[in-house]
Amino acid sequence: MHPKIFVLNGPNLNTLGTRKPEVYGRETLADVEARVRRRADALGLRIEFFQSNHEGEIVEMIQRARTEAAGIVINPAAYTHTSVAIHDALEYAERPTVEVHISNVHAREPFRHHSYVSPIANVVIAGAGTLGYELALEWLEGHLRPTHSA
Amino acid sequence: MHPKIFVLNGPNLNTLGTRKPEVYGRETLADVEARVRRRADALGLRIEFFQSNHEGEIVEMIQRARTEAAGIVINPAAYTHTSVAIHDALEYAERPTVEVHISNVHAREPFRHHSYVSPIANVVIAGAGTLGYELALEWLEGHLRPTHSA
Amino acid sequence: MHPKIFVLNGPNLNTLGTRKPEVYGRETLADVEARVRRRADALGLRIEFFQSNHEGEIVEMIQRARTEAAGIVINPAAYTHTSVAIHDALEYAERPTVEVHISNVHAREPFRHHSYVSPIANVVIAGAGTLGYELALEWLEGHLRPTHSA
Amino acid sequence: MHPKIFVLNGPNLNTLGTRKPEVYGRETLADVEARVRRRADALGLRIEFFQSNHEGEIVEMIQRARTEAAGIVINPAAYTHTSVAIHDALEYAERPTVEVHISNVHAREPFRHHSYVSPIANVVIAGAGTLGYELALEWLEGHLRPTHSA
Amino acid sequence: MHPKIFVLNGPNLNTLGTRKPEVYGRETLADVEARVRRRADALGLRIEFFQSNHEGEIVEMIQRARTEAAGIVINPAAYTHTSVAIHDALEYAERPTVEVHISNVHAREPFRHHSYVSPIANVVIAGAGTLGYELALEWLEGHLRPTHSA
Amino acid sequence: MHPKIFVLNGPNLNTLGTRKPEVYGRETLADVEARVRRRADALGLRIEFFQSNHEGEIVEMIQRARTEAAGIVINPAAYTHTSVAIHDALEYAERPTVEVHISNVHAREPFRHHSYVSPIANVVIAGAGTLGYELALEWLEGHLRPTHSA
Amino acid sequence: MHPKIFVLNGPNLNTLGTRKPEVYGRETLADVEARVRRRADALGLRIEFFQSNHEGEIVEMIQRARTEAAGIVINPAAYTHTSVAIHDALEYAERPTVEVHISNVHAREPFRHHSYVSPIANVVIAGAGTLGYELALEWLEGHLRPTHSA
Amino acid sequence: MHPKIFVLNGPNLNTLGTRKPEVYGRETLADVEARVRRRADALGLRIEFFQSNHEGEIVEMIQRARTEAAGIVINPAAYTHTSVAIHDALEYAERPTVEVHISNVHAREPFRHHSYVSPIANVVIAGAGTLGYELALEWLEGHLRPTHSA
Amino acid sequence: MHPKIFVLNGPNLNTLGTRKPEVYGRETLADVEARVRRRADALGLRIEFFQSNHEGEIVEMIQRARTEAAGIVINPAAYTHTSVAIHDALEYAERPTVEVHISNVHAREPFRHHSYVSPIANVVIAGAGTLGYELALEWLEGHLRPTHSA
Amino acid sequence: MHPKIFVLNGPNLNTLGTRKPEVYGRETLADVEARVRRRADALGLRIEFFQSNHEGEIVEMIQRARTEAAGIVINPAAYTHTSVAIHDALEYAERPTVEVHISNVHAREPFRHHSYVSPIANVVIAGAGTLGYELALEWLEGHLRPTHSA
Amino acid sequence: MHPKIFVLNGPNLNTLGTRKPEVYGRETLADVEARVRRRADALGLRIEFFQSNHEGEIVEMIQRARTEAAGIVINPAAYTHTSVAIHDALEYAERPTVEVHISNVHAREPFRHHSYVSPIANVVIAGAGTLGYELALEWLEGHLRPTHSA
Amino acid sequence: MHPKIFVLNGPNLNTLGTRKPEVYGRETLADVEARVRRRADALGLRIEFFQSNHEGEIVEMIQRARTEAAGIVINPAAYTHTSVAIHDALEYAERPTVEVHISNVHAREPFRHHSYVSPIANVVIAGAGTLGYELALEWLEGHLRPTHSA
Repeated sequence: MHPKIFVLNGPNLNTLGTRKPEVYGRETLADVEARVRRRADALGLRIEFFQSNHEGEIVEMIQRARTEAAGIVINPAAYTHTSVAIHDALEYAERPTVEVHISNVHAREPFRHHSYVSPIANVVIAGAGTLGYELALEWLEGHLRPTHSA
Repeated sequence: MHPKIFVLNGPNLNTLGTRKPEVYGRETLADVEARVRRRADALGLRIEFFQSNHEGEIVEMIQRARTEAAGIVINPAAYTHTSVAIHDALEYAERPTVEVHISNVHAREPFRHHSYVSPIANVVIAGAGTLGYELALEWLEGHLRPTHSA
Repeated sequence: MHPKIFVLNGPNLNTLGTRKPEVYGRETLADVEARVRRRADALGLRIEFFQSNHEGEIVEMIQRARTEAAGIVINPAAYTHTSVAIHDALEYAERPTVEVHISNVHAREPFRHHSYVSPIANVVIAGAGTLGYELALEWLEGHLRPTHSA
Repeated sequence: MHPKIFVLNGPNLNTLGTRKPEVYGRETLADVEARVRRRADALGLRIEFFQSNHEGEIVEMIQRARTEAAGIVINPAAYTHTSVAIHDALEYAERPTVEVHISNVHAREPFRHHSYVSPIANVVIAGAGTLGYELALEWLEGHLRPTHSA
Repeated sequence: MHPKIFVLNGPNLNTLGTRKPEVYGRETLADVEARVRRRADALGLRIEFFQSNHEGEIVEMIQRARTEAAGIVINPAAYTHTSVAIHDALEYAERPTVEVHISNVHAREPFRHHSYVSPIANVVIAGAGTLGYELALEWLEGHLRPTHSA
Repeated sequence: MHPKIFVLNGPNLNTLGTRKPEVYGRETLADVEARVRRRADALGLRIEFFQSNHEGEIVEMIQRARTEAAGIVINPAAYTHTSVAIHDALEYAERPTVEVHISNVHAREPFRHHSYVSPIANVVIAGAGTLGYELALEWLEGHLRPTHSA
Repeated sequence: MHPKIFVLNGPNLNTLGTRKPEVYGRETLADVEARVRRRADALGLRIEFFQSNHEGEIVEMIQRARTEAAGIVINPAAYTHTSVAIHDALEYAERPTVEVHISNVHAREPFRHHSYVSPIANVVIAGAGTLGYELALEWLEGHLRPTHSA
Repeated sequence: MHPKIFVLNGPNLNTLGTRKPEVYGRETLADVEARVRRRADALGLRIEFFQSNHEGEIVEMIQRARTEAAGIVINPAAYTHTSVAIHDALEYAERPTVEVHISNVHAREPFRHHSYVSPIANVVIAGAGTLGYELALEWLEGHLRPTHSA
Repeated sequence: MHPKIFVLNGPNLNTLGTRKPEVYGRETLADVEARVRRRADALGLRIEFFQSNHEGEIVEMIQRARTEAAGIVINPAAYTHTSVAIHDALEYAERPTVEVHISNVHAREPFRHHSYVSPIANVVIAGAGTLGYELALEWLEGHLRPTHSA
Repeated sequence: MHPKIFVLNGPNLNTLGTRKPEVYGRETLADVEARVRRRADALGLRIEFFQSNHEGEIVEMIQRARTEAAGIVINPAAYTHTSVAIHDALEYAERPTVEVHISNVHAREPFRHHSYVSPIANVVIAGAGTLGYELALEWLEGHLRPTHSA
Repeated sequence: MHPKIFVLNGPNLNTLGTRKPEVYGRETLADVEARVRRRADALGLRIEFFQSNHEGEIVEMIQRARTEAAGIVINPAAYTHTSVAIHDALEYAERPTVEVHISNVHAREPFRHHSYVSPIANVVIAGAGTLGYELALEWLEGHLRPTHSA
Repeated sequence: MHPKIFVLNGPNLNTLGTRKPEVYGRETLADVEARVRRRADALGLRIEFFQSNHEGEIVEMIQRARTEAAGIVINPAAYTHTSVAIHDALEYAERPTVEVHISNVHAREPFRHHSYVSPIANVVIAGAGTLGYELALEWLEGHLRPTHSA
């Protein structure tokens, strides 16, 4: 069966498409989910797509990933910078993980330059827009392929 | 119809009135809500009064404010100092916002001197006791009046 | 007799109304004084209104407040961030004090985020425009009322 | 009646026993609860045992402790380092409190060296494994005994 | 004609494949160039592939990119952390730019956590191995397509 | 034969019982030694009890522990915060070690928040009063038991 | 009529010529004024030359410059490093400004390396001795010439 | 003729005796001047006693000391921590200088721990109360005596 | 009987008189002791004079001061900057204490600017040479006099 | 013969005139060279004009200046902030040196506020545009004139 | 055959002997090379001696060392403090490495106290003058001897 | 007579040979002393070899060196990072001094990167193992030779 990937989205990402559309475009999180599913199909991956504004719910999804997912794509949004709990959950999950940011956080306020997630992630992609989710899947597909050597 | 204002209260504010009454007085959050409503009536404003100990619930109330409220009064309590998610939600809501602290946080522990909310708020009132909520409403009323120029 | 309040203004506030009027509006310090006096009348307070660009003169007005004023409203402007002398004068005066900033200093340059005055003030109001002076008076009126318990 | 103690566990502690068993052993949180209950029985204490990944739920349990518990044992896990809300809830609860960490957090990453809980706790025990919970109970039992003088 | 992309590699990347092969694999920079060219062909892009250990030479290639390239993929290696000159050259070039790191620099020594390049890049990809170069090209292809709206 | 534990006490602990007795109680270091010996007897441990105001003497006791003791309980007092030499001696001794502080050092001056000993200790107990020594012994007894697996 | 330039001198500059003459030479502030006037004549500029040890007086001169001067040359001396008020006054004045230091402040004590004036000045000249005033005038003359484009 | 000593007092020292008399006693600055004059007489010194709340006036008194005084006793009060101008004036004056603080500034707020004056003073006396002025005179008398060698 | 004062001297002070005599003069510690005794006689005080290079020995002398001395004069020399143990001993001793430094430590290396002793001392005298010991005695004499009110 | 001045330009200055011409104007480095030569002729100076993007080449030009030049004008551009090697070369060259920046670096990003060159330069001129080079020559001419006294 | 050692010298070391000869002596880099070769002969080592002012050239020599040298002696001069590229090259080379500084860098400016090379070097020798190179060879000879155990 | 060198060893060095022999080898401090003596004989130097765990004893040996030794070799071990007293004693001794560390402290914990001894030493040798002592002697021998010029 195709490997399942958890695609997790942090706080305020449910507002995508409404928030400053002249800057971020009119693509909603539902649109993102649709394109992620199309790409996953093409790569032979299954997707569980999830958004929450609650730190605890994201922690619990990551815990579930340990047994239910082959890999994790996570855009922790604001919790990137404040959540040790997400860091610890990822340490527990022991799944290949890609951290995605739609915008280039390094070009924004200083408090967005530090990430509790990056040291525990395998890959970090920032600034590629919503395409970043697709690039994350492509990396995971290659990483999970049987011939892949760590 | 009268403009609606969201009055949002962060963690532990549900304990008001019981906590060190010799210091903070015996006024409960229900008492605060009552005086806020009286002042709002006098100013021609409607109120939605809300308290939560959950960061995610406060984030979601702020998101709703974008379409449902004309302004926000927020006492983020402990989340003032730790929540980038509330900062981001306020950035999304794009509503005139007054940050209120009952005590003068600048005269307390160093970790209470930094606020993620202040840079995104219009007005900050600290130390005016529960009267601070009323002063916040007064500013909002003037700010929302048709003759007001940004 | 009505209690007297000192309303003190720091350096460069004499330029109000001329400085970037498209941003700060065309209200001058004289206009501010007029509205402050109107509000004071309504609240049953007397006002001594003062502006100086000299740190020493502001220090001396605060010293006088110990015996001549029932409360202090102070917009220390640039001295907010550099004057230990004003901090010490306020410590000496032992009067209820409201620190007012017309703009939200927390959203400006980092060197405006630290205040020597806030730890010694009772109340801090920032970003409410010139209405901030009036809100300060309202808090003082309540605080000075005979029935007020510390 | 025997005094009741709240034993509170923070995020990811529900994964105990599965996470790196060669390091942390195969003892699950249910096992911990069992040994804690045995020790409590021996000491004449009652236990309410609780785990949550949600900061707000932990805050609310601590609030309840003010009236429902004689003491608190808390392992705040990741929230140790990020939660001012838990700090404030403990300040409100005014119960004797023991902070427990299974591992020696001082020998781990620098971001685990700072605790918002320690300054408000009475006792801190780190690195004693799950025995730490039992030692916490032993201290509480002595502290609560009628002959105890502050 | 197909747009040309500059793929620039910083100091010590010429040693790829020899350096700790049990860790980084046996793929050499020539191998990377080959796979980058294959992906570029598939995407309809032309490639100029370049490596240098000299900061000045990299600066000069970036300057040339202003008129000769449609986009830049750059792995600045050690110069990521020390070169303001590369930052300035990129500011001059005004080309869409993707910063690529083979390993996850955020999980390495602290001096690798700061990048002078990230604030001027559009996209940052770290830890995806040499696949990162291909993901960079895919983003550039989409970004350069006529229908792309900023 | 019963395992021997070194119980080491740093500078000024010889003044226990005299120093602010209304705060710390009237228990002297001799009293502490007596209760430690009683608990050790109950647990099947032998004790060598030692106090010194001299950093070098404490270093030398720790060195001796390598061959003469099965475990170490140490209250380094003021040397906690300043002695790299004690850190190095403990690294040399390679004995299971419990660091004990009678008061909760995390609630005192900032210079007491850093410990050179904690990163090399197995267990840290702070704020449990002189009971902390007994809890330390209980942990050591379990840790040294034959069935104990690292 | 020739444009007027304010040449403002901060605290202790009235002691020029007496202070360590073997280091700073025997040129007094009156001598500086004379050479500045000669250069101004040659360049077709008028000069108002001013020195004060009082921060408030310098602030007021800068305020006057808004309407009375075409440009400002300022040697803020010690106030360079401590005066936010002078920074704000220059922001208000909106005149082309040259900051002059007789010695190279960057080669002196660290507390002289930070300037509140530099971010608001157009030009900074340090270490050119009293010739620095003349170079400042030359730049201003070119900047004020009708053909000058911002 | 007897050598003259300048005894200079910074901002808010004119309030001595009124400010928290239960802490600082009821001695006014006039009382201090009287006891300073008595001690000076006994030591064969003349005194010029001066207080100002204006930084500029203190700077100018120090400048005058270069030619008019044999030594300086200065209590810079709040300007201790913020005035580079006083530092520079003392550098210019080249007189033996004693910095006096009535209270022990090292035991107060952190911002009172740094002094711009101490590195340029010969002697610092803090916490000796108003006797500190007399101790300062005694040191100056010995330092100025003909047989004294630098 | 006359009150006894402990005059305590830290490491390397036994070398006084030999060390850079062209700078520090040829006065030895024995000479200092002699002049201290003469002044003490004049003031009606008895002296116990002590020097040690061992932190532990100084700690023990301070402990003895609790019952054997009416006051402490201490020149902690190098231990000023590194000894928490001396800080704690002084906290225990509860004697009026004067910290003396022969040179002005504030004008030397930065690591000499911080003192663990100053926050616990009553008075700090730095830079007055060996006369500083005498000034310390004079303050103690006044402080100990029966008419002295805290 | 006329003294020779080295005019050295760091990385990316070869792009002058093309880079953001609406901001920096359309003057190229060749234009700058032309105006510098005209001014040098008028002042009786000879010029060697040089630009490089290579830190090592600039170091070597500065070394040559020791024997081949009477003075140095250097715009180190990006190497200002990162090159200890240029600092050391200037220390070796022992030539009067003027550091020039076209823009006011103090008003740009924080990483441009620190200069390794300023402490070793005689004069710093920032923000005067390309006129800064001419002002530098004028200072050097005066400094090199036979009658000049250090 | 005798093992070959690379002796690498960073920027400005080509000026040795000319630079401040009264301080550094008149020994040139050629003299250093001669004495290094004499010592190498005595120790049975061959030498490749190299100097460059170009970071990239030094990086490339270190890369070559991986296959061509048995050990490295490097005086990185100014690049010590700024070059991550040299750090990475040494990591790649995997040769025993001695870092040599002619002067004691720890007694010079603070920016010379940090080295990117020391954490990757085996041995650091600073302040031994040019003899340091010889001591480096002696260590390498012992380290490379067959009987040497890591 | 041959010059005498003091070879001083700090805390825990008496454990050499026992501590982690698989890492540090089985050479004891006695072995080190033997090889140091052999090298000294060959170089025409006499040795006084000393170890102590007591800071005060090391201070006193350094004081004696002023008159009894021609040079000092010191491995201050843990006191390197914490002892200002040793720094001051070396300042007093005024003997040529070599600081030796067996391991490369720069590659270990951050608290081992700072040394109070390095700024006062002539030479620092780290990471050369116990050979470092011999290299220190070789440098001292050359430095002390009559023909040596400072």
